Amino acid sequence: MTAADRRSRLVAELVDRGLDGVMVTTLVNVRYLTGFTGSNAALVVPRDGAPVFLTDGRYRDQAAQELPDVEHRIGRDLLGMAVEVMTGATWAAETHTMSVDAHVRLGELAPETSFVPAERLVESLRVVKDDSEIAALRRACDISTRALEALIEGPLVGRTERAVARDLENRMLDLGAEAIAFETILAAGENSAIPHHSPTDRVLATSDFVKVDFGARVDGYHADCTRTFVLGRADDWQREVHAAVRASQAAGLEALTEGTAIADSYAAATSSLEASGWLHAFTTGLGHGVGVEIHEDPFIGPAQTGKLASRTVLTMEPGIYVPGRGGVRIEDTVLVTTGSPEVLTTMTKDLLEIG
Amino acid sequence: MTAADRRSRLVAELVDRGLDGVMVTTLVNVRYLTGFTGSNAALVVPRDGAPVFLTDGRYRDQAAQELPDVEHRIGRDLLGMAVEVMTGATWAAETHTMSVDAHVRLGELAPETSFVPAERLVESLRVVKDDSEIAALRRACDISTRALEALIEGPLVGRTERAVARDLENRMLDLGAEAIAFETILAAGENSAIPHHSPTDRVLATSDFVKVDFGARVDGYHADCTRTFVLGRADDWQREVHAAVRASQAAGLEALTEGTAIADSYAAATSSLEASGWLHAFTTGLGHGVGVEIHEDPFIGPAQTGKLASRTVLTMEPGIYVPGRGGVRIEDTVLVTTGSPEVLTTMTKDLLEIG
Repeated sequence: MTAADRRSRLVAELVDRGLDGVMVTTLVNVRYLTGFTGSNAALVVPRDGAPVFLTDGRYRDQAAQELPDVEHRIGRDLLGMAVEVMTGATWAAETHTMSVDAHVRLGELAPETSFVPAERLVESLRVVKDDSEIAALRRACDISTRALEALIEGPLVGRTERAVARDLENRMLDLGAEAIAFETILAAGENSAIPHHSPTDRVLATSDFVKVDFGARVDGYHADCTRTFVLGRADDWQREVHAAVRASQAAGLEALTEGTAIADSYAAATSSLEASGWLHAFTTGLGHGVGVEIHEDPFIGPAQTGKLASRTVLTMEPGIYVPGRGGVRIEDTVLVTTGSPEVLTTMTKDLLEIG
Repeated sequence: MTAADRRSRLVAELVDRGLDGVMVTTLVNVRYLTGFTGSNAALVVPRDGAPVFLTDGRYRDQAAQELPDVEHRIGRDLLGMAVEVMTGATWAAETHTMSVDAHVRLGELAPETSFVPAERLVESLRVVKDDSEIAALRRACDISTRALEALIEGPLVGRTERAVARDLENRMLDLGAEAIAFETILAAGENSAIPHHSPTDRVLATSDFVKVDFGARVDGYHADCTRTFVLGRADDWQREVHAAVRASQAAGLEALTEGTAIADSYAAATSSLEASGWLHAFTTGLGHGVGVEIHEDPFIGPAQTGKLASRTVLTMEPGIYVPGRGGVRIEDTVLVTTGSPEVLTTMTKDLLEIG
């Protein structure tokens, strides 16, 4: 599927909703619909007629290269240029990301136009991935897995969280990642109890849990993977906590199947934690879609409505966090199918005892 | 100056403007006012009474460590928690960054409260830097300068843009940067004509211009520096273009003095480019404030009102871009004083002929 095909799906939605068009101002949505990789742009998509791409002078050449098939206009005032090419009475605006001030200005620029919330129109299209997206996600996950597998050949004991995190990031870049997907979480010992820990100068030591949450970015698509291992020999408590998280993750993964209610996927993983007596120590989100954003629709939660669709890519990441002592998270990026999901981050989930 | 002092300055502004308080939802503004380094938070600052900090459960311990002196509340619904602690009729909201949807919800949650635009209230406080901010900016600029000086000892010819950019980034991290300030621009040969070029697999070759726009981040503060050099011997055209940019930058820097109208600083740099016949090839912004954001107030432009204040930190970055052939940019991060600005990115601006 090409960017033009994605725009066609968007236009079909406009017809269904009785809209004259949508003004796309969320940068990742513009990228999804056009392939543009710069840092400032908007896209005007009318129901009838051709879309118009808007960016500033820095990106004149890049726009010509990346989207030769879309009319584009160059200038500093994207909103002003947008209203010039809009026709019709009722347009959707991306009010979930557009600032209040921009929205007020839009009303002043186009007083005759009624702007209604887009209600995550483009985000909803992004939930089901096409072949090129799945290929990019597969590569990002493969690079991530190989980088971590190489990293844990060690040595790790005696190095700082910060140094080991950078080592992992450099391995991903060496393997072909265009960037890291997000700031690496690498947490040793008691720091592993902090769900979102930034690497420090703490030195990795024997008996530590080491929790690593990391990923590569390829062609704009993100991988997201967490593994937790032990330096030296695991003690009984470490084995118990790791086994509880692993069982929860396995139960959650089994419930990531086409047609399953998202709330049921949530219940599958948390019921397992409840059964093992650790639900009280699970304090984060359980999973989220992954794509051109590291966190995107659908989010897995008890109050989410809707069912899972094939070709959705998302994470499953239960954890147990015991402040002052330590924590475990196991997270995969997976592809939903009609059967068991395909795990894209293929590294082992055994409790590794490392060097 | 501490975060508490910054909040006192903010309260003084609230008194001046007759506001009952301000709801700070822009993450960098929350950081500026509290020191909090996490990824999700808000701060309610009433004119009368103590501020309340809001974040989610992931950051319970971090908030306790980073801002022990501010009351904080933990939960998923920051807006809902915010309105619970607000009293009074008229509050400022950060409508320049708050989404339309969030603003609508705020009105529903607090129908009795009138929300007015904050009009970059916190951003205006951030323009003048305090000692701790200047110290962090100085360190970030120093690390950046030393990293580039080491990089150009070479060899560079025969390596890709991407590899050399990563080398530079690793040097900054080795020297103590907590992160890179933004994605490095490293552009060789004809690519140097692209103002915001992402590094590719193009191989650096003798006779190339190499333009490097990069910086380190220290304690949340950003450095921003650009140098352009030649691999091998510069030809006459390269010398001419470089000299024109250097003269423009020098003229612009001289006009970055306390009390100078910002528009006059702009005119000083662009008049120089006009005199050398290159103004038509200057297609980007001329400069911007630097601090907890890589681009922040004040922006240097012909239509900007206002005068420069001492202790403002900003960039001066004229350039010449000739599509298909090459380009030059020279950029420093500088500290405004009552005399000539102090250049924080101290690397030479001579046209270096390398390797």
